[in-house]
Amino acid sequence: MSTEFKQRAEELVAAGRFLYQRGWVPATSGNLSVRLRDGRIAVTVSGRHKGFLTPNDIMITDANGQSQDGRRPSAETLLHVQIYRRCPDIQAVLHPHSVNATLLSRMLGGELLLQDYELLKAFSGIDSHECSVRVPIFENDQDIARLAAKVDAHMDQFAPIYGYLIAGHGFYTWGRSVEDALRHVEAFEFLFECEMRLRGVNKS
Amino acid sequence: MSTEFKQRAEELVAAGRFLYQRGWVPATSGNLSVRLRDGRIAVTVSGRHKGFLTPNDIMITDANGQSQDGRRPSAETLLHVQIYRRCPDIQAVLHPHSVNATLLSRMLGGELLLQDYELLKAFSGIDSHECSVRVPIFENDQDIARLAAKVDAHMDQFAPIYGYLIAGHGFYTWGRSVEDALRHVEAFEFLFECEMRLRGVNKS
Amino acid sequence: MSTEFKQRAEELVAAGRFLYQRGWVPATSGNLSVRLRDGRIAVTVSGRHKGFLTPNDIMITDANGQSQDGRRPSAETLLHVQIYRRCPDIQAVLHPHSVNATLLSRMLGGELLLQDYELLKAFSGIDSHECSVRVPIFENDQDIARLAAKVDAHMDQFAPIYGYLIAGHGFYTWGRSVEDALRHVEAFEFLFECEMRLRGVNKS
Amino acid sequence: MSTEFKQRAEELVAAGRFLYQRGWVPATSGNLSVRLRDGRIAVTVSGRHKGFLTPNDIMITDANGQSQDGRRPSAETLLHVQIYRRCPDIQAVLHPHSVNATLLSRMLGGELLLQDYELLKAFSGIDSHECSVRVPIFENDQDIARLAAKVDAHMDQFAPIYGYLIAGHGFYTWGRSVEDALRHVEAFEFLFECEMRLRGVNKS
Repeated sequence: MSTEFKQRAEELVAAGRFLYQRGWVPATSGNLSVRLRDGRIAVTVSGRHKGFLTPNDIMITDANGQSQDGRRPSAETLLHVQIYRRCPDIQAVLHPHSVNATLLSRMLGGELLLQDYELLKAFSGIDSHECSVRVPIFENDQDIARLAAKVDAHMDQFAPIYGYLIAGHGFYTWGRSVEDALRHVEAFEFLFECEMRLRGVNKS
Repeated sequence: MSTEFKQRAEELVAAGRFLYQRGWVPATSGNLSVRLRDGRIAVTVSGRHKGFLTPNDIMITDANGQSQDGRRPSAETLLHVQIYRRCPDIQAVLHPHSVNATLLSRMLGGELLLQDYELLKAFSGIDSHECSVRVPIFENDQDIARLAAKVDAHMDQFAPIYGYLIAGHGFYTWGRSVEDALRHVEAFEFLFECEMRLRGVNKS
Repeated sequence: MSTEFKQRAEELVAAGRFLYQRGWVPATSGNLSVRLRDGRIAVTVSGRHKGFLTPNDIMITDANGQSQDGRRPSAETLLHVQIYRRCPDIQAVLHPHSVNATLLSRMLGGELLLQDYELLKAFSGIDSHECSVRVPIFENDQDIARLAAKVDAHMDQFAPIYGYLIAGHGFYTWGRSVEDALRHVEAFEFLFECEMRLRGVNKS
Repeated sequence: MSTEFKQRAEELVAAGRFLYQRGWVPATSGNLSVRLRDGRIAVTVSGRHKGFLTPNDIMITDANGQSQDGRRPSAETLLHVQIYRRCPDIQAVLHPHSVNATLLSRMLGGELLLQDYELLKAFSGIDSHECSVRVPIFENDQDIARLAAKVDAHMDQFAPIYGYLIAGHGFYTWGRSVEDALRHVEAFEFLFECEMRLRGVNKS
């Protein structure tokens, strides 16, 4: 085990605990990864509870998401691979599974439009609330390779995006580091909560 | 006190604290049990606060729920017995008492239908969101033997189920271990929260 | 300082921290008291933050709520006195100030009716969900003596009650001990949350 | 570093952690300041996560908000300066960024009117619920100097106010000390939660 892997694994363990304490990775949902300097990926082992990870629950795959140690990585590892392939500057991908992301992705068709929120400035490269962020929503699909291809095709047209939703499933976001990606998760979850609460307000 | 009992009692104490911290066993509600290897049942003593249990608040009953030590087990012990009798592979039964389970069980008649949720995969044996899970809702009844018989009759027709609701009362779920049962609680509570929030969203 | 006072003061400090962690005594709201064996009352000093009490924030009044040490007791001490006078078996009175109690007490006129909840069994003397608990709602009033008289007159007609609401203000409940009273707070807050959520559900 | 600065910096670090634990400064939102005895301002450095501050994330500006050490203060420092200039007795200004403040400030035009809440008494100088507190809502603006001028003009007409909202952005409040300002934050957030929940209740 390299020092780099040990450090990254500890970051993912802490990220899992952080996300769980906020209710964003219930049961054994969600998955987390970091890209190592040599291009391989440190990712959560399939079926682990993200709130109670140990470094031993983090495994290594090659750049294509193929296991290097015989253990099975999270089912959606190919969605992480798609982001790493496309974005050389992205080193961490997080997939929380919150109530709000689940509901908005089921209720809305096509995309969630976020605008007039000061917090949009939390996303790298945005320096004013006077803009909008589009969060695409993809149909859920147990064929992850096919889902990854859809995400990739979408990014060909609409990049840059800061994250996306999968219907009934949660959302994906990423960053230049685990800390950067966690800041994006916090911002998205705040905005998802705003959007859900707005829809519960009675007009009149 | 056998080592096995001590270990199981500690698991129930920890489970109670876990459920309480999430608001799922308010006041002295809820009850928790584990089946011991010899078929007897370790169950919470009646009227204890599940958030602050000590091993001394866990007692032993025989396989029929009859106290072995003169103390009174939780009023609903017979509902635990019904599950253990029917399902040899089930070793833990949990009865939380959350706001969402209470409300959904009062609002809906007959059953709660859960579908198009990725998190359904948290239930053993389900490997796709493209399915539905039916959660039966039983009328509340202070005659627990009668209620247990109704649950048993339902399972004759519709097994397997992963849990059930009692109107105005909360829900029951179970698993091959306390950890397994807690994962089911987390998954159900997540889905109950989704279902309640959906019902608060204004159409238009 | 008697040993009895020291112990009771510690119980109130712990109760304040407990209530605050759940969001039920924001800012400097709420007040807490215990009756001492000699009939005097240990009560929170006016204006203290209930989440961060020290024993030094607990003072003693006589049975009429008159300060014994020159410090000012919580403004609503007379409401505690009214309960202690009327109910010899009650040794603790708690006044949390939660969002749900505040809203229900503003929205409803006259009383809140709680029924068909298994959790009603948390109230001493209730052993079935097949009953109802009436929670009277009093107009808010800065003249606490007058408010206490209204509560007393109500109890002449309708005792026993387990607690009452003051419009826009929160609620009062009590018990044979601080632990007993806290169990009542937990049960009421659970039921208040149920009642508020029910009112947010869209029919259809 | 003076002892005074060290103490104030520690207070801001603790205040940030407190606000974050309640979900009121997600991602890197919000900013916090204290006025030092010599009139200079201790304020959070731009872009820091308020939940994980260290004294090293607190910098000093002059009374006009100009950096004294080359680091960039929070973008909205001029809004803090405006309050300190106007109110000699105010020594702390806090800007949380909660979901409820964000939503109410977007939904309402002009002002939020708070009345018939006992908790209004948490605001210095209010000793009855029989009054109302007006919380002005300003359009969001990336030109902070212009926004500060609008706030100042408003106060010329309507002072005293206890806080104000910025559309889609959160709110500002202040006090004679950090503790005093935090009490105001707690009171406002409680009242914002009340106002949001009221708007989700179905008439009938």
